[in-house]
Amino acid sequence: MSTRQRAIDAPGTPDRRFYLGQDRPLRLDCGVELGPFTVAYETHGRLDAERRNAILVCHALTGDHHVASLHPITGKPGWWQTMVGPGKVIDTDRYFVICTNVLGGCMGSSGPKEINPATGRAYAMSFPVITVADMVRAQALLLDHLGIEQLFCVIGGSMGGMQALQWAANYPDRVFAAIPIACAARHSAQNIAFHEVGRQAIMADPDWCGGDYLARGRVPRAGLAVARMAAHITYLSEAALHRKFGRTLQNRDHITYGFEADFQVESYLRHQGSTFVDRFDANSYLYITRAMDYFDLAAEYGGVLARAFAGTKTRFCIVSFTSDWLFPTAENRAVVHALNAAAANVSFVEVETDKGHDAFLLDEPELFATLGGFLNGAAEHRGLGRS
Amino acid sequence: MSTRQRAIDAPGTPDRRFYLGQDRPLRLDCGVELGPFTVAYETHGRLDAERRNAILVCHALTGDHHVASLHPITGKPGWWQTMVGPGKVIDTDRYFVICTNVLGGCMGSSGPKEINPATGRAYAMSFPVITVADMVRAQALLLDHLGIEQLFCVIGGSMGGMQALQWAANYPDRVFAAIPIACAARHSAQNIAFHEVGRQAIMADPDWCGGDYLARGRVPRAGLAVARMAAHITYLSEAALHRKFGRTLQNRDHITYGFEADFQVESYLRHQGSTFVDRFDANSYLYITRAMDYFDLAAEYGGVLARAFAGTKTRFCIVSFTSDWLFPTAENRAVVHALNAAAANVSFVEVETDKGHDAFLLDEPELFATLGGFLNGAAEHRGLGRS
Repeated sequence: MSTRQRAIDAPGTPDRRFYLGQDRPLRLDCGVELGPFTVAYETHGRLDAERRNAILVCHALTGDHHVASLHPITGKPGWWQTMVGPGKVIDTDRYFVICTNVLGGCMGSSGPKEINPATGRAYAMSFPVITVADMVRAQALLLDHLGIEQLFCVIGGSMGGMQALQWAANYPDRVFAAIPIACAARHSAQNIAFHEVGRQAIMADPDWCGGDYLARGRVPRAGLAVARMAAHITYLSEAALHRKFGRTLQNRDHITYGFEADFQVESYLRHQGSTFVDRFDANSYLYITRAMDYFDLAAEYGGVLARAFAGTKTRFCIVSFTSDWLFPTAENRAVVHALNAAAANVSFVEVETDKGHDAFLLDEPELFATLGGFLNGAAEHRGLGRS
Repeated sequence: MSTRQRAIDAPGTPDRRFYLGQDRPLRLDCGVELGPFTVAYETHGRLDAERRNAILVCHALTGDHHVASLHPITGKPGWWQTMVGPGKVIDTDRYFVICTNVLGGCMGSSGPKEINPATGRAYAMSFPVITVADMVRAQALLLDHLGIEQLFCVIGGSMGGMQALQWAANYPDRVFAAIPIACAARHSAQNIAFHEVGRQAIMADPDWCGGDYLARGRVPRAGLAVARMAAHITYLSEAALHRKFGRTLQNRDHITYGFEADFQVESYLRHQGSTFVDRFDANSYLYITRAMDYFDLAAEYGGVLARAFAGTKTRFCIVSFTSDWLFPTAENRAVVHALNAAAANVSFVEVETDKGHDAFLLDEPELFATLGGFLNGAAEHRGLGRS
C-alpha cells in the first residue's frame, strides 16, 4: 500500500491511550496531585511537517473522544461526524484533528470509573473533583507529548466551548484560533439548578450505593436515566419538541387514562434515558456536571472577564443559537463583549435555528457555513495550504 | 356576638368536607363511575341573598383549598392570601370565595391517598385517572349543593387557569366571568416532558412500591423531592434565579470541590424538595400531572378551540407573564385568538415581570391592578354593590 493510499484510507488513530503523570503528577485545582493517570484520545488526518495544522475538538458533558469514529458501545457514528471528516468543515484531509476524553470521563480517561493504581479498585467517589481547567491541563500535556506547540484551533460546543475559552485564557500562545460554540464564561444559576436535579436523582437511587455501585455489581440505572431525561429537555427548544412530537400519541389512537407513555414525547424521553445508561457512568455524570457548575472564567481573573483575554493574539469565532435557552445568546455575547474590551480579534454569529442547544451537534447549514468561512480565513492567515 | 360582628370576625369556613356520589356516582372521562367521593373546600366571605357574588378559586398542581387560611401541615398562610381577603383584590368583604381541593388531590378530596370506601384501604394506583374536566364536574356538584346557579367569576393560575377555561367551555351559563392566568388551552410537549421526568423520578424510587407505599409504611421521599426540584426550576425565570441566587455560595467563602450544596441555588432547591415531601402525596403528584398532560380543550371540541366558546356570554380576562416559559404568552394568546374567533368579550394583559410562571402567586402589582380593574368592571355589569 502506498503512503498516499494509506493516508486516504487511514481512519486516524481512534481510541488511543496516553499515560501521564508517572514522573510528575498533575496538580489539580482542588489541590490533589493526580498521577499516574490516563488520557484517551483519537486523531484524524495527518499532522503536517511544521506541526501547525492541529485542531483540538473538545466534547460536551456526555460526549467522548469518538468524535469521528464508531462508538465502541453504541456502534453509532462519531458524535461530530457531520462536522469532522474528509472534505467536511473540519477537513481531516487538511487538518490534524485531536479529540480527548475529558479527565473525569468514562470512556478511557482517568475518572471515577477507572482503577486507582494506588488501590487496585475503581476510584468511585474518591476520584478528586476536577475542573474545566484541569481537563485543559491534561490536554496540554497530551499536546506536549505529540510535539504540538501551538494549536491551529481549539473548538467545542457547550462544555467543549468552556474548554475552548479556558484554553484561550490559560494558554494564549498555544491557541491560534478558538471557536467556543453555545457556551458561557460561567455556568448560570438555572444551569447549576438543572445539574443539581440530575445529581440528586442519581444519588437518590439506592443502587448508587454512595458511589460504590461498581464494587457491588450494581448500576443506578433509574437515577441516571431520570438525570438524562431532565437534561435532555434542556438541550432542545420548546419549538423543536413541538415540531417533533407535539401531543402526538405513541402507537395508539386514544389516551389510555394511565401512566404508560401515551405521548410520543414521553416514549422518546424514556428511550433517551435508558440508552444513555448503557453508555455512560453515573459517577462521571456527577463529576463532569460539577466541573461545569464550577466554571467561572472571570472569577479566575480577578472578577473581570476581559482580563482572561488581556493581550491575546488568538482569533475568536463565537457562535450562539437563537433557540438555545441553556446557553442563550446573551451569555455568548457577554464573552464577545469581554473579548472586545480586550481588543481581541473576534467574530460573532447568532445562528437562527429552532433546534435549541443541541443545534451544534446537528445538521445546521448556517453553522457549517460560519465555521467553514472562519476556518478558511484563519488557515490563510496561518499560511496553511489549501487541501 | 352580633351577627355583624360575627361576619367581620369570621374567617370563612375553612376545611369543610362535602360528601358526594352517594346516590349517583360521578361518571369520569375515563369511564369509571366514582362514588361515593369527597370534595374538601373552604369558603371566605358571605354569599349574598341573590347568590350572585360567588368566586370559585381554582388551585394549581401542588395547591389545595387553603387559599386564604393557615395550611394545616406547613402552618404557612394560604397560598393566595396576597390576593384573597378583606379589602384585597378578591375582596372577601364583597365576594363569597370558594376554593376546593381538586379531585385526585391529597388534602381531603378523594384521591389516591384517601380510603376507597369499597375496600377500606387507600386507593393508591387503583384511583381512576382523572382529568381537568372531572375536577370541574366535582366542583359543579359542590356549587349545586351550595345553591349557586351561576358563579360571578372563576379564576386560577396554571392548572387553575385550565379549570377556569374548562368551566367556561363546559358550563357557559354558570360562569359570568372567567380569569385564566398563565395557562394554555393544552399542555405542550415540553410541559408533558417535564411532568414525565417527575413521574419517572417518583416511580424509580423503591419506596414508591408500585404506588402501595402507604400500605407498606413507606414514602418515596427522594423521588418526590427530585420531581419537585425539577418542576420548581420551571416555575421561575432564568432572570429570577440569577437575581435571587446567581453563583452565590452557601455559607462558605470558597467552593469545596465536592458534592455538598456549595451554591445557594442548590441549597434552595434541596429545601424546596424536602419540604414539599412533607406536605404532598407522591401518587397525587402522578395523578394531577397526568390530568394536566391530558388537558387539550380544542380536542374536546372537534379540534377547534373557538368551538369551546361558541356563543359564550362569559367575560374573559386572560393574563400572561413576560418571563413565564412554562406557559408562555403565545399559549395564552392562542386562547385569546380563539375567544376572538368566538366573538367573546375578552381582555388580555401580558404582565411585564421577571418572576416567571410563579408570578401569579407573588406580590405583582400589575397583576393586582389588572384583576382588580377587571373584577370591578364585571361586578358593575352584574349589578353587585360596592363593598
